[in-house]
Amino acid sequence: MNYGLVAVYKTIFSIVYGAYMDLISIRDVGLKDIEAILDTTEKIHNKEHEVDLKGKILATLFFEPSTRTKLSFQSAAMRCGMEILDFLPESSSLKKGESFVDTIKTVTGYADALAVRHPKEGSARLAASVSNKPVVNGGDGGNQHPTQTLIDLFSIRKSKGRIKGLNVTLLGDMKHARTMRSLVYGLAMFNANITLVSPKGLEMDPRYLDEVNKKFGLNVKIDNTPNYSDADVLYVCRIQAERFADPYEAQRVQEEFRVKKADLKDAKEDLAILHPLPKINEIESSIDEMPQAKYFEQAHYGIPLRMAVLEYLLR
Amino acid sequence: MNYGLVAVYKTIFSIVYGAYMDLISIRDVGLKDIEAILDTTEKIHNKEHEVDLKGKILATLFFEPSTRTKLSFQSAAMRCGMEILDFLPESSSLKKGESFVDTIKTVTGYADALAVRHPKEGSARLAASVSNKPVVNGGDGGNQHPTQTLIDLFSIRKSKGRIKGLNVTLLGDMKHARTMRSLVYGLAMFNANITLVSPKGLEMDPRYLDEVNKKFGLNVKIDNTPNYSDADVLYVCRIQAERFADPYEAQRVQEEFRVKKADLKDAKEDLAILHPLPKINEIESSIDEMPQAKYFEQAHYGIPLRMAVLEYLLR
Amino acid sequence: MNYGLVAVYKTIFSIVYGAYMDLISIRDVGLKDIEAILDTTEKIHNKEHEVDLKGKILATLFFEPSTRTKLSFQSAAMRCGMEILDFLPESSSLKKGESFVDTIKTVTGYADALAVRHPKEGSARLAASVSNKPVVNGGDGGNQHPTQTLIDLFSIRKSKGRIKGLNVTLLGDMKHARTMRSLVYGLAMFNANITLVSPKGLEMDPRYLDEVNKKFGLNVKIDNTPNYSDADVLYVCRIQAERFADPYEAQRVQEEFRVKKADLKDAKEDLAILHPLPKINEIESSIDEMPQAKYFEQAHYGIPLRMAVLEYLLR
Repeated sequence: MNYGLVAVYKTIFSIVYGAYMDLISIRDVGLKDIEAILDTTEKIHNKEHEVDLKGKILATLFFEPSTRTKLSFQSAAMRCGMEILDFLPESSSLKKGESFVDTIKTVTGYADALAVRHPKEGSARLAASVSNKPVVNGGDGGNQHPTQTLIDLFSIRKSKGRIKGLNVTLLGDMKHARTMRSLVYGLAMFNANITLVSPKGLEMDPRYLDEVNKKFGLNVKIDNTPNYSDADVLYVCRIQAERFADPYEAQRVQEEFRVKKADLKDAKEDLAILHPLPKINEIESSIDEMPQAKYFEQAHYGIPLRMAVLEYLLR
Repeated sequence: MNYGLVAVYKTIFSIVYGAYMDLISIRDVGLKDIEAILDTTEKIHNKEHEVDLKGKILATLFFEPSTRTKLSFQSAAMRCGMEILDFLPESSSLKKGESFVDTIKTVTGYADALAVRHPKEGSARLAASVSNKPVVNGGDGGNQHPTQTLIDLFSIRKSKGRIKGLNVTLLGDMKHARTMRSLVYGLAMFNANITLVSPKGLEMDPRYLDEVNKKFGLNVKIDNTPNYSDADVLYVCRIQAERFADPYEAQRVQEEFRVKKADLKDAKEDLAILHPLPKINEIESSIDEMPQAKYFEQAHYGIPLRMAVLEYLLR
Repeated sequence: MNYGLVAVYKTIFSIVYGAYMDLISIRDVGLKDIEAILDTTEKIHNKEHEVDLKGKILATLFFEPSTRTKLSFQSAAMRCGMEILDFLPESSSLKKGESFVDTIKTVTGYADALAVRHPKEGSARLAASVSNKPVVNGGDGGNQHPTQTLIDLFSIRKSKGRIKGLNVTLLGDMKHARTMRSLVYGLAMFNANITLVSPKGLEMDPRYLDEVNKKFGLNVKIDNTPNYSDADVLYVCRIQAERFADPYEAQRVQEEFRVKKADLKDAKEDLAILHPLPKINEIESSIDEMPQAKYFEQAHYGIPLRMAVLEYLLR
């Protein structure tokens, strides 16, 4: 295939099938498709549905460290009967100076689908534009990580039975955390009530919230003090010390925003606590053993969810 | 599964099946189970027995360099029809500061069994305590490496037809070498006659020998001069220069303890020489081609032995 | 198997089957076998032939960075139904000082075939001499890379319908580039007309050309000025700056030898441009989208070609 034709090919595909051939951003997927993916995930999790992609190869190209995303893509693909081709940047021709685009063009010929993580924003979209195979974004810098958003939505629906009308509190750095913007977008699609709690100066960009509001309507509260007494779901993410000029201030804020066992007595009894992981110390480790802690289940839902995504992309 | 319940679950399992769900130490396995594993290994090696674990995933988590243990676990799993999920610490979220326990809890959800190597003693036991899947210890620091001990026992039985009553000489650093303590334990279970030959100051801890003696009875001789004229089996391990204050003394001792072709003329003709590998220069390379050298066969027995172990753990 | 017997075993094999059990150099393969491999590659590419090596394991041992060779060996093996055992030198016992020969002897017992890349010339031959399994050379320093040569020959035949009588221009560093010597050898076997264009001082060793000429007859022109107006095939390779004493001279020569879109107006319309990849900037990137650019197809032919080679070696 001439790579100049890739764009044409993928456009025709999207017209014929009414959906993109790639999964680069949660914005590429309509509500109906998301619901279909979540339903399939549920069926796979309940062992009511098998995905058969035997004989197909998934290439994983992770240009940044990852435990969960990479291994769960690989495990999900294995559970679908696929083989894994693992591109390791540290032992590749990148060292010889090969371009990202050339690497993608080459590996495209060796596999049936590509999962790509890269620190540069827009890299996954670039990869998709030169590959005639489905490309799924495993995180491109601070930009998008659509399968994580789908896992988050599934985890909420799974623990609460629904998303609509739930009080979902997002706690942490709303400015830089990759997952948060996409999650707000996804939650707005499903009409959840959102509270964004962040330290001062780490609020989510209001222009982004305006944009989501215009698209779906947005029921959102903004706060700078940790508080989740009315939350059905508490979604925690990290506050990196590097975001502060003063290390003492960083430590004070991290301590203030740490979720503590003692604080949970004021929370709803059936509160579900989520976290994209890895967590460092933003949640007291004693909470791990409490029934409210759902973050390891959340990580494990990555398998059926990514199986559903692979089926969706390779249909 | 709530991880607080893992201990309860694994305890019930051990009561129902009369055996542990994990393989952390050779002490966890009774003589009867060891003999069953060695018998199964023999059958697999003779192609009289197939292990079918198709569709199951083995995760390999090696936090320390390894050639034999990791690759032979992977190859063994493939020969059983399993898929391999390879966790590479250097490209993982460990770099972001994730704890060992969180990593294990996460990967547990992606696989059906875990093979773990970690430099810290007790880490494999810790992993087993937070995973609801079978965990096999691939070496935890200077502590335990049970599949190596099983390979050693199998290699002795395979080359000599039995273990009981054999004269087995262990040569090298008896104080620090990981494999040696476990091997003494295993040999005592099978009533072999053991000679421990080490440089002065690198003897095995006598309290450990007392403990084994109390448990099984122990026929043991201690020596500081290399000599194996009456040995049926000579098991060699490395003496690291770092153990000596004086580098010249280290070199002298390494030279004295090196197994030389010339020395073998005083040894039994059917002496079997074993070594856990990798070897550096503790055996003259010309010995590699002699019929007494059994260490590469020993390494290769890792495949059927670990297939038998996987069957034992995933039964 | 005693490793002293490997040579005897492999010799007997070569007498019985009339072919080597290993693929170390293009010199080991006769014209008839090459044609058979290219024909099989064609059939695999056209989906007229399937290779079934289910249940077999290919070990990949790459002691040097590689994207294409390693991943395409792995992908090819998967397409044949094989499993992949990936030896990663950076997390292996090499760090503890194990010898290359010991590593090969060990891994041999874990797999059914070995693909080896190593920076030292002669290492693949050495590996083959101590392994009782088929060994294929994935590049040993500046020496040999036979599957690359086969891909090159296949790519020429595929885009031009034949090799005999074609004008093939090789452009770049003819002195050091690994692929060039083997390609000249292969092209001479097929009676192509060869033009070698290199900067002064980077010509191919004339003794090598004499040798090939004596063996097959050689129609060769030597030039120091980039020119490919009569070429049917232009094969480009890199000129490394390190080969020049003066960095300005290096830059000047690299610029002079860069293939530019403007230059192609003087070339044949159906010129096929090949490159072993990775390319850095020796071809203007705008050429990538032109129909003459065949280098990504060339890389992708690595899959059916290496499938054919695996079938040839494991027949």
